[in-house]
Amino acid sequence: MTRIDAIIQDIKAKIATVTYTAGTRLPSVRKAAALYDCSPSTVVEAYERLVSAGILYARAGAGFYVAERTVPLSLAEIAPDIEREIDPLWVARQSLETQQHTLRPGCGWLPADWLYLEGVRRGMRTIAKAEDDVLSDYATPLGLPALRQLLARRMHGLGIEANPAQIMLTESGTQALDLLCRFILRAGDTVLVDDPCYFNFYALLRAHRVKVIGVPYTPQGVDTAAFAAMIDTHQPRLYITNAAIHNPTGAILTPSTAYQVLQLAQQANMYIIEDDIFADFEVTPAPRLAALDGLSRVLYMGSFSKTISASLRCGYIAAPNELLEDLLDLKMATGFGGAHLAAHVVMHALMDTGYRKHMSMLHTRLARARTYALAQLAKLGITPWLVPNTGLFLWCQLPDGVDAAKLARDCMAEGMVLAPGNVFSQSTDAHRFMRFNVAQCVDARVFAVLEAVMEKCK
Amino acid sequence: MTRIDAIIQDIKAKIATVTYTAGTRLPSVRKAAALYDCSPSTVVEAYERLVSAGILYARAGAGFYVAERTVPLSLAEIAPDIEREIDPLWVARQSLETQQHTLRPGCGWLPADWLYLEGVRRGMRTIAKAEDDVLSDYATPLGLPALRQLLARRMHGLGIEANPAQIMLTESGTQALDLLCRFILRAGDTVLVDDPCYFNFYALLRAHRVKVIGVPYTPQGVDTAAFAAMIDTHQPRLYITNAAIHNPTGAILTPSTAYQVLQLAQQANMYIIEDDIFADFEVTPAPRLAALDGLSRVLYMGSFSKTISASLRCGYIAAPNELLEDLLDLKMATGFGGAHLAAHVVMHALMDTGYRKHMSMLHTRLARARTYALAQLAKLGITPWLVPNTGLFLWCQLPDGVDAAKLARDCMAEGMVLAPGNVFSQSTDAHRFMRFNVAQCVDARVFAVLEAVMEKCK
Repeated sequence: MTRIDAIIQDIKAKIATVTYTAGTRLPSVRKAAALYDCSPSTVVEAYERLVSAGILYARAGAGFYVAERTVPLSLAEIAPDIEREIDPLWVARQSLETQQHTLRPGCGWLPADWLYLEGVRRGMRTIAKAEDDVLSDYATPLGLPALRQLLARRMHGLGIEANPAQIMLTESGTQALDLLCRFILRAGDTVLVDDPCYFNFYALLRAHRVKVIGVPYTPQGVDTAAFAAMIDTHQPRLYITNAAIHNPTGAILTPSTAYQVLQLAQQANMYIIEDDIFADFEVTPAPRLAALDGLSRVLYMGSFSKTISASLRCGYIAAPNELLEDLLDLKMATGFGGAHLAAHVVMHALMDTGYRKHMSMLHTRLARARTYALAQLAKLGITPWLVPNTGLFLWCQLPDGVDAAKLARDCMAEGMVLAPGNVFSQSTDAHRFMRFNVAQCVDARVFAVLEAVMEKCK
Repeated sequence: MTRIDAIIQDIKAKIATVTYTAGTRLPSVRKAAALYDCSPSTVVEAYERLVSAGILYARAGAGFYVAERTVPLSLAEIAPDIEREIDPLWVARQSLETQQHTLRPGCGWLPADWLYLEGVRRGMRTIAKAEDDVLSDYATPLGLPALRQLLARRMHGLGIEANPAQIMLTESGTQALDLLCRFILRAGDTVLVDDPCYFNFYALLRAHRVKVIGVPYTPQGVDTAAFAAMIDTHQPRLYITNAAIHNPTGAILTPSTAYQVLQLAQQANMYIIEDDIFADFEVTPAPRLAALDGLSRVLYMGSFSKTISASLRCGYIAAPNELLEDLLDLKMATGFGGAHLAAHVVMHALMDTGYRKHMSMLHTRLARARTYALAQLAKLGITPWLVPNTGLFLWCQLPDGVDAAKLARDCMAEGMVLAPGNVFSQSTDAHRFMRFNVAQCVDARVFAVLEAVMEKCK
């Protein structure tokens, strides 16, 4: 990147996160030259290019100002320096666009025949015969009462005491997260995430125009010393994390880390969003932040897309009582009634006696797939950062000299979708890491393609 | 409202629409007293109350400043002066919370047995037998190709030339509108709407923290002289309107109004969102803005909740080509894959030969219900602003001395949900108007309750 490009990107980023707003006067050319450690002519060139692009305007003798934005929001423009291979939006779209008949060790969900589709089919047939209102009406504001009661019982099993009236259904897990972010955040706020973390957190937070700070993740949960330091430096409004099984590493939060995180969040008066999308993959429940905290500053959420079906969209939020009414207003204003029919089908699948049997078989199947993947990866010199005993993912280090983004690009050319480390890492220092979904690695061709492409990379 | 309350509300509104932001210095007490035409002590009292509420802070000798917001977004707080009976959020929640076994002439949708549930049931049974991927997978980024092709053909029938690759599916009509607003608007922008208009536009725009300006609506469409004047005064970024059948009036846009609106929008470089949710209720298609404009500054959207089912959430957007990629990024970031299963069931219902037959019967049934409602309302001295020949709604004037909000409150006590005029009117000068849904007025008790309550109101 040239000096000029670096200045342009810095200014664009400041506008995106509303550090600069319409009408802000930019530093004088002389000051900017000192700031960016470059010549005044470089600054002038950068400013002039931004004027041509309509992003700044010049007032004769008075300097350069930020122009009113007149074009729609472009997430691509907010983070223009990200290579496609490690752009969360690009990886998500690749995975979704090439769903069938492609090798997808990088994708974040189970193959169709690993999900509880038998229960979905049975639920669909039952609901097809249901009374008219089930099939016709908008959901009530909070959503299907029976499913919220079931969720409250499941949460109780995890030590989270939520009244069904504190639980609201959403269109999906992503929509639940988005709704919570809209509720809590304003453009320009700072948010802490784990580094690495689920890549769509970055894409989603880009849409909220906030500053995102990654905190290093350890096998015991987030690095609490770094967490405390980031709070001091950045005064974040929010911390977003996975409950229990961490994506992408498969690490599990320890009770002591959970306790320290909550203490620090309390001192800083921050909110925490705990995304429990992988709850049903656990054999022994790990501690939940929402349980320790008693749903006071922790907003707990999840969905059923990882175990029942991603085609039936249905998520949920359990929120502190005093936030509920305002959160419900926001849900109504931006989504009106939620997914009524999907909620009915999900409930049928969950209540089905077959679901527990299915999940128990799934654990066995995943364990077998994990063992297989680890053995195959070992042959290629790819080593796990941690060997998880549950969940879908292996977070692995590549051999010396192999760059994850390049490997992903070259494998894509062979029809295989990978998830390179820097997609998950805000600090982009995970260029030698790769996330593998063991359920998508049962096909030996995955390793054959990897081996062949890595051979060529050397 | 006291003087103090008026000042407090004005300041809160300026913060909500980001006219004031964190750190803004408020006018001095003396200046504010001149501005609000009151005594300095009134200003001091208002400022002090806002300090107590944590909304302002005082700096000794330097005045009052806007504090950093540390509490989540409250839509109720953004418009604190709205009475519950005419609060869009409250009316929506009442309608959704009292769905069955209540008289609901104020609600915006058809009774269950007027919808195409036979097609939904058949679609559900068919999809229950579909291949695994239909039941398991996230949708592709744009959504089900076959449904987008079908939508392109339907749009073609309305003169809108949209390539299926310009059409994206969304979780619902409301979500389509919300996504477009997020894409186009920033907090503090100005948006034009029809006055009166669909009440959830207000609720949704409140969530976007923008300034909303109502433009008077006439039987030929929006008042174009007023529209031009509002553009001059407010430099709006966007105009949101219904396509064809207007909610709540039932008026139909004329070709000449459509042409003038587009010309004005073009001169002002504004976007237009055209919400075509009532498309299938039309007998003869009215002109569409999106058709005249060729999908250049008009973003066209709709859903199937009014004719097929509101329980199956599925909406769509047809967007200008050059905006599509960025819009799709935003959809992916905030919702990930869309409603795959719902899209399949909707497509089955639409393709079903029974759908056209159902719609033709529905037209007859609505015509009969409209005639009946008009006759019954006439007996009570309630007169239509316009007699529409299609759609669900009658926008009616109440007899002298009857206030719509009071009537709604008193009818609610009798278990009947009404939609008083000022819910639809930003200028709140529709206090003598009421929207009736003729399909929810076939029960004679509706008029018996109305008559009894109006008698008591006098």
